[in-house]
Amino acid sequence: MQILRYETYKQNAANTEKETQLMQQNLDEQVLEIIRAVQRSGDEAAFAYTRNFDKADLSSLSVSEEEWRTAYEKVKAEQPVLFKALTEAAENIRQYQQRTKEEGFQFSPEPGIRLGQKVTPLDRVGVYVPGGKASYPSTVLMDVIPAVVAGVEQVVITTPPRSDGSIDPVVLAAAKIAGAQDVYKIGGAQAVAALAYGTESIPKTDKIVGPGNAYVARAKKWVFGDVAIDMIAGPSEICAFADHTVPASYVAADLLSQAEHAEDATSICVTTDANYAEAVQKEVDRQTSLLERADIIRESLQANGKIIICDDEDQAIALINAIAPEHLQLMGERAEEQVEKIKHAGAIFIGAYSSEPLGDYFAGPNHTLPTNGTARFSSPLGVYDFMKKSSTIYYSKERLLDYADSIITIAEAEGLSGHANAIRIRKENDNASS
Amino acid sequence: MQILRYETYKQNAANTEKETQLMQQNLDEQVLEIIRAVQRSGDEAAFAYTRNFDKADLSSLSVSEEEWRTAYEKVKAEQPVLFKALTEAAENIRQYQQRTKEEGFQFSPEPGIRLGQKVTPLDRVGVYVPGGKASYPSTVLMDVIPAVVAGVEQVVITTPPRSDGSIDPVVLAAAKIAGAQDVYKIGGAQAVAALAYGTESIPKTDKIVGPGNAYVARAKKWVFGDVAIDMIAGPSEICAFADHTVPASYVAADLLSQAEHAEDATSICVTTDANYAEAVQKEVDRQTSLLERADIIRESLQANGKIIICDDEDQAIALINAIAPEHLQLMGERAEEQVEKIKHAGAIFIGAYSSEPLGDYFAGPNHTLPTNGTARFSSPLGVYDFMKKSSTIYYSKERLLDYADSIITIAEAEGLSGHANAIRIRKENDNASS
Repeated sequence: MQILRYETYKQNAANTEKETQLMQQNLDEQVLEIIRAVQRSGDEAAFAYTRNFDKADLSSLSVSEEEWRTAYEKVKAEQPVLFKALTEAAENIRQYQQRTKEEGFQFSPEPGIRLGQKVTPLDRVGVYVPGGKASYPSTVLMDVIPAVVAGVEQVVITTPPRSDGSIDPVVLAAAKIAGAQDVYKIGGAQAVAALAYGTESIPKTDKIVGPGNAYVARAKKWVFGDVAIDMIAGPSEICAFADHTVPASYVAADLLSQAEHAEDATSICVTTDANYAEAVQKEVDRQTSLLERADIIRESLQANGKIIICDDEDQAIALINAIAPEHLQLMGERAEEQVEKIKHAGAIFIGAYSSEPLGDYFAGPNHTLPTNGTARFSSPLGVYDFMKKSSTIYYSKERLLDYADSIITIAEAEGLSGHANAIRIRKENDNASS
Repeated sequence: MQILRYETYKQNAANTEKETQLMQQNLDEQVLEIIRAVQRSGDEAAFAYTRNFDKADLSSLSVSEEEWRTAYEKVKAEQPVLFKALTEAAENIRQYQQRTKEEGFQFSPEPGIRLGQKVTPLDRVGVYVPGGKASYPSTVLMDVIPAVVAGVEQVVITTPPRSDGSIDPVVLAAAKIAGAQDVYKIGGAQAVAALAYGTESIPKTDKIVGPGNAYVARAKKWVFGDVAIDMIAGPSEICAFADHTVPASYVAADLLSQAEHAEDATSICVTTDANYAEAVQKEVDRQTSLLERADIIRESLQANGKIIICDDEDQAIALINAIAPEHLQLMGERAEEQVEKIKHAGAIFIGAYSSEPLGDYFAGPNHTLPTNGTARFSSPLGVYDFMKKSSTIYYSKERLLDYADSIITIAEAEGLSGHANAIRIRKENDNASS
């Protein structure tokens, strides 16, 4: 893991263009073909792609009630510790998400005028859960629960089946714990298309959330506008700001937990102490060789692992805000004071014991976070993602007539005489009748 | 304007596929070429496209402080009624938007645990204001003020210049009233590209908002992900639910105010009274011929104008929720009771005097609203569009160790042993030292 000074990092960063979201010819062509096929042929296309990509020959796209109940009971009986952990995590997530639920309001700026905002849940939400060889029950909890808390009537999951047509029982158990209504055995761009436009078996939803591979991400970008999407997830990153009060082994372990996600994950340690930087570097090397996913970690650290030495805290904070990390660990003795200075970060972990996996799995705040610097303008997934607002406007006759001339004046300045007419006709009717 | 019964409308609607957001080959190729040119050549491309599309040969892309102040003083002196109306409207918008500002929170579910949410403004926002022959000071107020209220440090406007290189003074006056920092003379896809990636003159922003033509809309879709965007605006629509207590001339005038926007605007009147439907139809015909934009109105009504007769209120409400209209006017005597039953609408205007232009120009709630049925999942533009959230997580050593096994169990179930290691190393260190 490379150690470098702030100035060097800054210079390198300026020369590195971030990958943009513009056209990716080959990928986009494939994704668009899949989307169009699902729009055209519905279930037929869904079955065909699942045969082709997942090697699963299904007779039904949906998980049956019996299949689901059996999986749930099996996990409960055979993996009681895991079952309990998932249930505890679900309760923490529910508790936190309840706090993020917004209420509408109404107020009367003057007699005869009432303005307000009405907050209502979406009707239907689709959650994409990656599958295949891996299993992500935590994604199920994190993405389904906020929608349920929001009051969404129908929350459905799509996840690619294994080649025998089954879904990991742990994912199904998590789906039941979280409160999903249905689970469909479909993945990839075809799942996104099905959730966006509907098929015979799969309902058209209003919003699609959840992480996925490059096909899933591009498909979400394409259907965006026809349905809502959460965000286009990029490579994951961690930034840990630490000092000598934190065991270097803790910082190293947290950096490695991020690096094991994928070769393109980014792990950055920020410190103002050059000796400490070296201690962290040594711990990273020591622990890496002990970890199962050492190969992925080495590639990831080689490409994007950095320990950056800053002159002082202010420089470190400026650096962090410029990175706008998905996960930020403020670990040092001044962590509490530093929180106030952070402008851009997906989740902020405070103190030496608030390790990233605590947030990934358990504490309650969402692990679906803005990646790749998008914390500059995006938020963690939350109840607010599954609710929307309507403005309400009431003016009495008297109040409308009081302000009629101002409204007419602006309408006419914009050349929209029909708008002016709608106000004027009420004014003239009043004059005529008085 | 066609009168039809609910059943007929429903059947027709089922057969009409909404246009999707998928690839629009020619348009997308042009838009991508423009975006890439601006990414590559910055100001040089911006000047060239402005010469080409707007026929304006500029020496500077930004409106000078003097040009801006002169425009402001000119409007104030020469159009005092308009200036006053814009100032009043701005105050109403500010007052309403203040109410939508969210605060963070913090709570402690048990001793040694603190969870929270931090809410912070975006750093830089770009507002696109359409220009050319038309002038939209109301767009300036509606899009700039929520960003200013949110606390965004730098709110800039781009708007296409007239061929003499000038910007309408009314737009510049509105920009000053609203509190924008800078105005740039650039429109189209090139403006969106400049705001997304920055040029020598124009700052890279974090979010781009505001309406525009097809080029602007597609460019926003393309840069989405690299920056945030508000929404992809589609054709505008109004739905007015009225009964015999409302003068038919009012309903007709409101429908026409929507129809004058564009040929693809949609104006729908919903009623349970067949006689009333005919009265509205007659008023629409009578008033149309009196309006300046009668040609656009006739085309719009021909294509998308409908008076739909429902059997009863419940059916009408179901219809409205299925349409999810941008603007909903509940005008009849049961308007107040009906508000509660509305699930999907951008803005709800209550009563016979809350005419749509009141909301477009004056009342305070935003006129940038979800169109084309997207009120199913989107909200009016608001302060919340210019702020984002960061989760905060603090666990003490004791609490982390209490729950360490649950976290480790889930991490291992997902095959992420590096995650498990980050928790385990703290647990083992504690065991070793105790």
